[in-house]
Amino acid sequence: MSPRTGRRPGSSGTQDAILDSARNLFGANGYNATSIRRIAQGAGVDPALVHHYFGTKEQLFVAAMELPLNPADMIGPLLLGDRDGLGERLLRSFLAVWDSEPTRAPMLAMIRSAVQHEQAATMMREFIEGVIVARAVATLAVDNVEWRASLVSTQVLGLAIARYIIKVEPLASAEPDEVVAAIAPTLQRYLVGEL
Amino acid sequence: MSPRTGRRPGSSGTQDAILDSARNLFGANGYNATSIRRIAQGAGVDPALVHHYFGTKEQLFVAAMELPLNPADMIGPLLLGDRDGLGERLLRSFLAVWDSEPTRAPMLAMIRSAVQHEQAATMMREFIEGVIVARAVATLAVDNVEWRASLVSTQVLGLAIARYIIKVEPLASAEPDEVVAAIAPTLQRYLVGEL
Repeated sequence: MSPRTGRRPGSSGTQDAILDSARNLFGANGYNATSIRRIAQGAGVDPALVHHYFGTKEQLFVAAMELPLNPADMIGPLLLGDRDGLGERLLRSFLAVWDSEPTRAPMLAMIRSAVQHEQAATMMREFIEGVIVARAVATLAVDNVEWRASLVSTQVLGLAIARYIIKVEPLASAEPDEVVAAIAPTLQRYLVGEL
Repeated sequence: MSPRTGRRPGSSGTQDAILDSARNLFGANGYNATSIRRIAQGAGVDPALVHHYFGTKEQLFVAAMELPLNPADMIGPLLLGDRDGLGERLLRSFLAVWDSEPTRAPMLAMIRSAVQHEQAATMMREFIEGVIVARAVATLAVDNVEWRASLVSTQVLGLAIARYIIKVEPLASAEPDEVVAAIAPTLQRYLVGEL
């Protein structure tokens, strides 16, 4: 089921009301405790209309956070390819999103918010654990997937913050290939290597 | 030269004025562009008095940021020991600081502030580059020390944020020994290994 993105007359106020309600409830109660039904109630519409406009709860979350893409959709196919190139594929995808300003901005906004506000941290943690890690568990035939995913999150979060927010040099100015040569082996080991 | 920490009659107002001036100027102009002379001027005192109370600019920065310790003082001795245990020693020291609430709080406050405010990011970046990395360059006989240090910063920052701020599980509840087994090899490679 793909969310409908075209605008129709009269629909945009309703869509905005749904997105506002989603942001409020995800922000206040986290990802897990928020249902499509409660979001619909907050927007004064029928739950079917929320599904109609935005698809699943996961898709609505991505839309409400104004993320440029669904990280879970990105990660699924990456995990399916050949195992030796896993760390490099994952890192190149992240760099492609982050090295482009329009897609970087909303991702960094979410990280900034999670670092600042406990409720945003809960929301981000539950989305990572419940959606992204769940996808990895379903795809990667390896032990300790949750532990591995949390290790990956340390390296990926830290890279985003050091390179794009604090701008530590020479990392901030390094070419993607240099970053991949240095950091892909770390992700490869966290994902499928000896720990 | 060790900073004087004892209180004397009449000195505490002056010390507070110096710390306030230091926080304002470091925050507004970064670490590099801020001199003891300007801080003294801002506090309406003689620069000699700033040195008398707080020692060097580096020591004043640590006092003004209310850091529990000077990271550069911690890192120097760690880098001097046997090379094989470098990553593990560094990581155990970080975990000792972070796993204890009183020392964790001011470190996390500085990270939070750097993620949120560009000026605080500049201040933190300049302190890392100018003080911590400078110490590593002077101590570690290895190529590309600046590049290695920036890689270390990604893993260390990301670990702090994932474990203590976003609290990604099972990482947030993991024992220090488990964290060391997983992440020390990454730091070891970044510090002295093949990149």
